[in-house]
Amino acid sequence: MRIFGIDPGIAIVGYGVIDYKGNNFKVVDYGVITTPASMSPQQRLKKVYDELTNILIEYKPDAVAIEELFFNKNVKTAIQVGQARGVEILAVMNQNIDLFEYTPLQVKQGVVGYGRAKKKQVQEMVKLLLNLKEIPKPDDAADALAVAISHAHSGQFDKLFEMK
Amino acid sequence: MRIFGIDPGIAIVGYGVIDYKGNNFKVVDYGVITTPASMSPQQRLKKVYDELTNILIEYKPDAVAIEELFFNKNVKTAIQVGQARGVEILAVMNQNIDLFEYTPLQVKQGVVGYGRAKKKQVQEMVKLLLNLKEIPKPDDAADALAVAISHAHSGQFDKLFEMK
Repeated sequence: MRIFGIDPGIAIVGYGVIDYKGNNFKVVDYGVITTPASMSPQQRLKKVYDELTNILIEYKPDAVAIEELFFNKNVKTAIQVGQARGVEILAVMNQNIDLFEYTPLQVKQGVVGYGRAKKKQVQEMVKLLLNLKEIPKPDDAADALAVAISHAHSGQFDKLFEMK
Repeated sequence: MRIFGIDPGIAIVGYGVIDYKGNNFKVVDYGVITTPASMSPQQRLKKVYDELTNILIEYKPDAVAIEELFFNKNVKTAIQVGQARGVEILAVMNQNIDLFEYTPLQVKQGVVGYGRAKKKQVQEMVKLLLNLKEIPKPDDAADALAVAISHAHSGQFDKLFEMK
C-alpha cells in the first residue's frame, strides 16, 4: 500500500510518500512545496493546490494522511493555514483518493508509541523505521513521513482488532 | 460589470450576483450553498467547491469580491471556516476570475459609508441600493450582496481619484 503524508501549511507544505508492505516501509519520495510571502494569498493557495495535485498524480497513492491543525491562540495564523489546509484536502478529494486525518497526538502515538514523545524522538523513529541514514530535512518533510507512518500503523491496529 | 459577492463559510456560504452599470445596480441572483454537519469535513469542502464552481460558470462574473474572516477567539472555528474560505478562493482562481478581498469594516464603509454601521443598517442599504422589496434572506445572501456592492463602490472611488 502506498501512503502519502501531508504536513499542512501555506509557506511550506511537507509531503512524504512511502510504500508499506508486510510491516516493512520503503521511502518513495519526500519533500516540500513552498510559496513565497511576496505572492498574494490567493496565488499561494493556487500554487499549493496545483503542485500538490501534480505530485498526487505522479505517485498515485492508495491513501493520503494529513495532520490536523493545532493552534493555541493565534487566530490570524489559524485562518491562513486553515485556508491552505482546505485546498490541500480538496486536491486529494479531486483525485478521488481516500483521505485520513490525524491529530498531532495520534501521529506521535502512531510513530513512537506514546503521545508525549518529543519532536526529536519522532524524527529519530521516522529515520529508523524508514531505514534512512539521516533524519529527513526539512522538518516539514519529516513530519509528513511521520503522518504517513502513523496511518500505516493505525491500519495495523484495525487489523488486530478484526482478528479478535 | 457583473460582480459576484461571497460571504465565506462552511455550513452556509452566501453568494450574490449583481450587474453594475452607470451607478445603477441590478440583482441577477442570490442564495446560499449549504452543507449539513452530518457530512465529513472533507466532503463538505468538496461540495462547497463544486457548487460554487458551477454557480461561477453559470453567471460568468467579471469580478468576485469575498469578505475576509474575522474571529476574536475561537481558533477551532477559525480553522474550519478558514479551510472553507480556502476552497472558495480556489474555485474563483480556477475560473480565472479577478478576486478582491474586503474586511468587514471595508464592506460597511462601502455600502453604508461608515465602518461602524450596524448589520441591520447594512441590510436596509442593500435593499435600497438594489431596489428590492424586502431585505434578502438569509443573512448570508444579504452579506454576499453587500460585499459585491462594496466592490462596485470601491471601483468608483478609484475612478474619482483617476479623474483628478
